[in-house]
Amino acid sequence: MQEVPPLGGGGAVGSSVHVFAPATVANVVCGFDVLGFAVNAPGDEVIMRMTNKPGISISKITGDDGRLPMDPAKNTVSVSVQHYLQSVGRTDVGLDIELHKKMPIGSGLGSSSASTVAGLFAIKTLLGDNSDPAKLLPFAMKGEEMACGHGHADNVAPALLGGFVLIRSYEPLDVVRLPHPADLWCAIVFPDVDVPTREARQIIRKNIQMKDAVTQWGNIAGLVSGLFMQDIDLIGRSMKDVLVEPVRSMLIPDFYKMREMAMNMGAVSFGISGSGPSVFAFAKDEETARLITQKLQQHLTGLKIGSNAYVSTINDAGPRVLG
Amino acid sequence: MQEVPPLGGGGAVGSSVHVFAPATVANVVCGFDVLGFAVNAPGDEVIMRMTNKPGISISKITGDDGRLPMDPAKNTVSVSVQHYLQSVGRTDVGLDIELHKKMPIGSGLGSSSASTVAGLFAIKTLLGDNSDPAKLLPFAMKGEEMACGHGHADNVAPALLGGFVLIRSYEPLDVVRLPHPADLWCAIVFPDVDVPTREARQIIRKNIQMKDAVTQWGNIAGLVSGLFMQDIDLIGRSMKDVLVEPVRSMLIPDFYKMREMAMNMGAVSFGISGSGPSVFAFAKDEETARLITQKLQQHLTGLKIGSNAYVSTINDAGPRVLG
Repeated sequence: MQEVPPLGGGGAVGSSVHVFAPATVANVVCGFDVLGFAVNAPGDEVIMRMTNKPGISISKITGDDGRLPMDPAKNTVSVSVQHYLQSVGRTDVGLDIELHKKMPIGSGLGSSSASTVAGLFAIKTLLGDNSDPAKLLPFAMKGEEMACGHGHADNVAPALLGGFVLIRSYEPLDVVRLPHPADLWCAIVFPDVDVPTREARQIIRKNIQMKDAVTQWGNIAGLVSGLFMQDIDLIGRSMKDVLVEPVRSMLIPDFYKMREMAMNMGAVSFGISGSGPSVFAFAKDEETARLITQKLQQHLTGLKIGSNAYVSTINDAGPRVLG
Repeated sequence: MQEVPPLGGGGAVGSSVHVFAPATVANVVCGFDVLGFAVNAPGDEVIMRMTNKPGISISKITGDDGRLPMDPAKNTVSVSVQHYLQSVGRTDVGLDIELHKKMPIGSGLGSSSASTVAGLFAIKTLLGDNSDPAKLLPFAMKGEEMACGHGHADNVAPALLGGFVLIRSYEPLDVVRLPHPADLWCAIVFPDVDVPTREARQIIRKNIQMKDAVTQWGNIAGLVSGLFMQDIDLIGRSMKDVLVEPVRSMLIPDFYKMREMAMNMGAVSFGISGSGPSVFAFAKDEETARLITQKLQQHLTGLKIGSNAYVSTINDAGPRVLG
């Protein structure tokens, strides 16, 4: 990273920054639309350079198999950055963006959020904006709205803030960072099948029974308590979803079989990451987490389904400058 | 208190104990059926004496205007105690119970729970049963089932354990004691109108919208976070109920006017206690809590409605032996 000008300053042409932002697991089983956490891997990278021509260009996207738009008016990264530049009165700035996708698209791991947050953290860094990163959240949500049709924050908030994040309210936006046990390991498996986020939302019931909602909010209250109390068993007992998982699990190959396998291997909990098809398990140690990913990947191979797997603790840092 | 025999021992005839158990506020606005807390006042008292004739008698009930059954087969206190005696194999014991109601019946303050918990704590004390008071919970829930038609725990659990309690799950029963800021004051006003618990349950919608449930569980997660973080403002922001209050508030005279008054006087939050008609406010100091009860009582007087009021911090002890 070179020459970070102060916010409101000129922005030195030629300065650049290389930023990583993490994948995220939204919903966390019992916290549909309000909970999410960040992991250490995978994640996306953005290289942003200041140019002498006002406006944003995208010069390169890798790792997307040509699926993402190069048009800055249609790409979530550039659109979010543009909203940010307007809000800080710096539309005079010229930027070139390289986006390096290091995680699968449509995986339920907050792929678009990781890219968007990397872009926003890059411009914040280049302009020397030292304000609270949480202030970037509304701009990141603009990107989500474009990517998923909903301006949800359960991926962008943990990608931006790191750790475990509760979105208590959207109107007004009220975000609470939650603690977690340091030794909570996350095992993620992405079965390479197609579950578009929009469709995964549409199959969710709009009307539910009060008694099921009571079960659900008892569980989210238990999960939040377990996070504060560093009680991994309470976290595990609380991670049950009677409302969304029964529907979304139908889109994931052998979901209940994979859950049974993971729990038998010592998982604390098992569920869908975001809208799927990725699944995740919490475990009390790295060895168990690695065993779970290995066995689930083997099982998927037996079904002739390719997969990716990631093992990590929870990422408390959020985005970071790589260079 | 005299001569506490060990559990399983003879139980000395003539020994007696005098126990207080507290009123409780269930639901706590956004935690319908899963949250409750205990207060220091009001509460009920039980005097229990061991007799030489196996079986339970009720010799006196005061403060109930003749509304509670003296028949031990129909009174929630004696029925719960009988369940307890059966479970510990002490149906040989003879008991006489005096119940002194020190709080209004049908107030939404866990009146039956306070009596039941006082009775259970009395027999536990008389028999020298030093096990975890939480083990009394299933017996107390039997009493609730008889009193309200539902074996709910959101009054009996805080009455028994003290403090703020989450009932994460009923099957299996999983109860979590939550911390709270020490300086959280509770102002309670009971408008003397009739809101039977059974009817107050029946008007609640059985089917709700998913989006409202999401709002509600964002709020309960926020409330639990605020309790752990000792963040009274977050507690206040989270105490909103879009599902139950809009219906139950119709049974409470001038509910929204009273809320406006309380909030204008500096309340942190305001809502219905249990199924009502009692209302409660949280405040940051005793003076504000007292002012709120005074003004709300004056307002009710203007509507020609009698009322009782109570100001207290949260009761962390639960039931206690008075003598």
